[in-house]
Amino acid sequence: MQWIQLTIAQVSDVPGLSELSSDLAQNALTTNNVWMMLCTALVFIMHLGFAGVETGFGQAKNTVNILFKNTVTPILGIVTYAIGGFFLMYPGFETPGWFAFDSSGWNMFWFNSSEADITTDYADGGYTYWTDFLFQAMFAATAATIVSGAIAERVKLWAYLAFTLLFVGIVYPLIGSWKWGGGALDAMGFYDFAGSTLVHSVGGWGALAGVILVGPRIGKYVNGKTVDKPGASVPLAAIGVFLLWFGWFGFNGGSVLSADPGLVSIVLVITCLGAASGGLGGFLAAYFAFKRLDLGMVLNGILAGLVGITAGADVFTPGSALLIGFISGILVVLSAIFLDKLKLDDVVGAVSVHLTCGIWGTLAVGLFSTNPEHSFLTQLTGVAICGAMAFFSAFTIFYVLKVSVGIRVSEEHERSGLDSHEHGIRGYTIVFDE
Amino acid sequence: MQWIQLTIAQVSDVPGLSELSSDLAQNALTTNNVWMMLCTALVFIMHLGFAGVETGFGQAKNTVNILFKNTVTPILGIVTYAIGGFFLMYPGFETPGWFAFDSSGWNMFWFNSSEADITTDYADGGYTYWTDFLFQAMFAATAATIVSGAIAERVKLWAYLAFTLLFVGIVYPLIGSWKWGGGALDAMGFYDFAGSTLVHSVGGWGALAGVILVGPRIGKYVNGKTVDKPGASVPLAAIGVFLLWFGWFGFNGGSVLSADPGLVSIVLVITCLGAASGGLGGFLAAYFAFKRLDLGMVLNGILAGLVGITAGADVFTPGSALLIGFISGILVVLSAIFLDKLKLDDVVGAVSVHLTCGIWGTLAVGLFSTNPEHSFLTQLTGVAICGAMAFFSAFTIFYVLKVSVGIRVSEEHERSGLDSHEHGIRGYTIVFDE
Amino acid sequence: MQWIQLTIAQVSDVPGLSELSSDLAQNALTTNNVWMMLCTALVFIMHLGFAGVETGFGQAKNTVNILFKNTVTPILGIVTYAIGGFFLMYPGFETPGWFAFDSSGWNMFWFNSSEADITTDYADGGYTYWTDFLFQAMFAATAATIVSGAIAERVKLWAYLAFTLLFVGIVYPLIGSWKWGGGALDAMGFYDFAGSTLVHSVGGWGALAGVILVGPRIGKYVNGKTVDKPGASVPLAAIGVFLLWFGWFGFNGGSVLSADPGLVSIVLVITCLGAASGGLGGFLAAYFAFKRLDLGMVLNGILAGLVGITAGADVFTPGSALLIGFISGILVVLSAIFLDKLKLDDVVGAVSVHLTCGIWGTLAVGLFSTNPEHSFLTQLTGVAICGAMAFFSAFTIFYVLKVSVGIRVSEEHERSGLDSHEHGIRGYTIVFDE
Repeated sequence: MQWIQLTIAQVSDVPGLSELSSDLAQNALTTNNVWMMLCTALVFIMHLGFAGVETGFGQAKNTVNILFKNTVTPILGIVTYAIGGFFLMYPGFETPGWFAFDSSGWNMFWFNSSEADITTDYADGGYTYWTDFLFQAMFAATAATIVSGAIAERVKLWAYLAFTLLFVGIVYPLIGSWKWGGGALDAMGFYDFAGSTLVHSVGGWGALAGVILVGPRIGKYVNGKTVDKPGASVPLAAIGVFLLWFGWFGFNGGSVLSADPGLVSIVLVITCLGAASGGLGGFLAAYFAFKRLDLGMVLNGILAGLVGITAGADVFTPGSALLIGFISGILVVLSAIFLDKLKLDDVVGAVSVHLTCGIWGTLAVGLFSTNPEHSFLTQLTGVAICGAMAFFSAFTIFYVLKVSVGIRVSEEHERSGLDSHEHGIRGYTIVFDE
Repeated sequence: MQWIQLTIAQVSDVPGLSELSSDLAQNALTTNNVWMMLCTALVFIMHLGFAGVETGFGQAKNTVNILFKNTVTPILGIVTYAIGGFFLMYPGFETPGWFAFDSSGWNMFWFNSSEADITTDYADGGYTYWTDFLFQAMFAATAATIVSGAIAERVKLWAYLAFTLLFVGIVYPLIGSWKWGGGALDAMGFYDFAGSTLVHSVGGWGALAGVILVGPRIGKYVNGKTVDKPGASVPLAAIGVFLLWFGWFGFNGGSVLSADPGLVSIVLVITCLGAASGGLGGFLAAYFAFKRLDLGMVLNGILAGLVGITAGADVFTPGSALLIGFISGILVVLSAIFLDKLKLDDVVGAVSVHLTCGIWGTLAVGLFSTNPEHSFLTQLTGVAICGAMAFFSAFTIFYVLKVSVGIRVSEEHERSGLDSHEHGIRGYTIVFDE
Repeated sequence: MQWIQLTIAQVSDVPGLSELSSDLAQNALTTNNVWMMLCTALVFIMHLGFAGVETGFGQAKNTVNILFKNTVTPILGIVTYAIGGFFLMYPGFETPGWFAFDSSGWNMFWFNSSEADITTDYADGGYTYWTDFLFQAMFAATAATIVSGAIAERVKLWAYLAFTLLFVGIVYPLIGSWKWGGGALDAMGFYDFAGSTLVHSVGGWGALAGVILVGPRIGKYVNGKTVDKPGASVPLAAIGVFLLWFGWFGFNGGSVLSADPGLVSIVLVITCLGAASGGLGGFLAAYFAFKRLDLGMVLNGILAGLVGITAGADVFTPGSALLIGFISGILVVLSAIFLDKLKLDDVVGAVSVHLTCGIWGTLAVGLFSTNPEHSFLTQLTGVAICGAMAFFSAFTIFYVLKVSVGIRVSEEHERSGLDSHEHGIRGYTIVFDE
């Protein structure tokens, strides 16, 4: 018996065993990291999705201008996030609070990487430090992009770029730090799985501030009536929405922060059920409201369902996902009607999709979460705090820009289109000069 | 000697070893599931591919209507599959047959999930229960989408939606259960790797039934001549075909039902060779038939090659893949000519792509499979049985709709375009009002 | 003591342990292969990216012609690579040289596969033989596609197809063999991670040869002035650039040839920083040069940054990536201006993006690589040798075609557009015949 004991003790010294164990952990990291990198690519392509939606629903005379914004936004997002955003968002709070400044960490993100960051020691082996940065950087630009759609067709491009620089470089990561960076909201028990509030409603509040300050497009509200401004290309809008849904596989799936098979696959099912029933809700609500088969509302309903489901994609059941998505689809229609009543002119319905349904989804966690620790009141508190900060910041930035350099193009430019004036080319030149 | 025996026996008790073994199995599941989830996303994006092809080849005046169908179809597909389709397709036959009804299983899919479904116990660790559902749900909607392209531009939208609900909710999963659900065709030895028959020809038969009952578009066949109806946007059609090819990486690659490296990579090579030589076949066949560099036929040739290769993508050699694809490309041209002779007006060539080449590909398994158990006669039997059921069901549904609520829009609506009447907007508004 | 020795010796015989070890290696292969297959899919979708850029920037009257080229190019690329290119590129040099011909290996690629090719014995378990082929096949077609954009709108389609067949079937794999196939340039220490030279500048030299020999479009240079030819659809061009960036996740990420988490995630960060700062460079350079918010130059700047970063995406730091990308963005603007001065008419700026920045990126490895073995002089030598071969080959092919069958369409066809003459259809038919 004594001999056997000795033998077992020796087994753990057999080189093959401990090496196997470490190889296995490395392999688990590799698998997780493959998933996270592909999710990063999927979130990236959401920027093309936004470009499609906004160019599709915007008027043809402003196509190039819209595309310019949508192309430069992720560029600025990635660069500012590399320079500062990443560390502002994950400052390593000593005690969970509202702001932390780690002077050793405040640096270009890559100065802080070490050998440990590409081993299984980082983030429980869910991904590498580099993937972490890139995944989060792709998220960051999303919030500003949401704003661009709402205030398109009359905002000055330079003003928008200045806003974006501040919003994506400072406001978004600061608010994000409160929850995802381990700050005060996280400590409070506020839950936002993949960003119904931290990404979507933050962007939505920015959009609302912009819409209020920049004012409606000329000819949008005439004698108390809302005038439709036909979008340039409905197929482009549809391409955009499908790509956003596609990208959401990465947006929500990657928010698991590993490839955990149970969790990720459940999250994707919830995400797709939310999207589908959101589309259905938008379809039916628009049919009852307008007696019309309103493709725009089906498309926005899909986005609404996706936004609504995002706060709790890992804690909703499929049944509640169908319900939450469906309600999101209805809300997006009601919200759009309501905003028009207030003469708040949102070109693509960004406020209705991202703000209204972002709030709804975050609150829905308090109502439908399978995790008993989630509470409606805490969710409401989080929504209110993030909302106050996002709206206040965005309003301030836009207001300062408005009274200094101005945020609205001249009436002449707006009427004839921004493309020919600011960019010197047309979005479409489909003529046949035979 | 006796001591050593004892020692070895002890080794299997070393906690590290059995834990390693279970961790490894879990990691294998994670890897497999990552692949399957990404394949799911790729199959999802095929719905955008279909939307592109149909909107591109359809006339501009019906663009919104086509997009409406293509957006609502996956929505209905996912929702009906969640509610019933999944269990109808995988009923757990006690003895392989034509219909099974597991009353304990017949439920919303998620009521049946258990802890075991996200462990390696489910499906040999190839994926989780949740991924299984979502992957299959994305497949399900495909069959109905195929129909929508063929009968576009004159079918009543509500009639199409009713058809889709029944076709994707009941007909597709029922036929699928015969083979993939372990039913009678599976027991018979019928082989259909990823759905040349179960998805594509089923959709193709539905399309044929629709085309017959709804009739050709006004002005398509005049005095024995076929009149071309120019599609709105060839780039959109090309985007669609490329996205479908892209999505087919997931459609066929995911049908391996794990990330098995040998099998999946061979399947992808076969898939791409089939697509490429299908395009080549369409190119050359159209050049000889029409003396024209016919992009539409190159694009449909690619799809034809993909459909043709799908039934045996894991049992064809690269050489036979090139041949089968090439023949598919030729067949799609001949089939299109033949259908026009019969005055069967198929807007996008869906019957030629999905039915003709779906049949061809399924039969090709009987001719070219490297698995000696596959037989031409069994393949033919399977094609005939599935075809009879699919055509009969689709014809019946369309017929009942036709004699009750009607399936065709009024002549006035058809002439002026469905968009302005049913949807109130235009697909394109590319005007510059300077 | 003697007993314990015996025991340890026995442990390695325990079936569970060696089996575990082999299962783990297999699982690592599976993970690596999943990554490589998805990278293959991403490189595939770059062909749609090219199609978007070229169709978007080309004139509407030539849309179908451009799409025809962009669709047939990957078809020819895949088929020729299957038949011969793969073995020409990886001939298994006995001593590193400029050409090798393995008569046993020269064959359709699939005749050489063996059981070992789908096990961990192949390529260190980084991927299977089949994935290897498919990934490389997707790369191959890229070089020819680059050419198509430059010489669009006036080149004869059959001449382009003949050129492509030779360029993608022979020239590209031959040059590739010098470095990636283990030939003379590899032995010399030349470094090109993912193809700034081997893919992009090779394609760029082909484009330059084509542009010189085919001559500028009618009306492009009039009385010493450069006349803008407005592209058909700026949204299409933007879709193309975003898809190319998306695809570059696979192009560079897959060039690691495994899913190594540290290496791949660093490569993706470098890639995205290069793209973002390239776009910024193009934005600012064009603003200073033209006093215009030039979306075309932002988009081409992104591509320039991607091309520039590609040669050293695994050996650049994030800081140098930002710098290299930014310089690429400036260079693409200067290069475009310079080419116009020389009356070299490049429809999409392919020479500026792929040749100028391909050279720059390759040289940048000599300046910024973290690997001290990389030298500027060796990089320059490699650039010169590949450039000489690529330009000489492409010039010869185009020249022979020019003096034999001709490479330019008639003036009449060029003026009225290639679509109506060669293809019989229009790219866009957006009319509403109410």
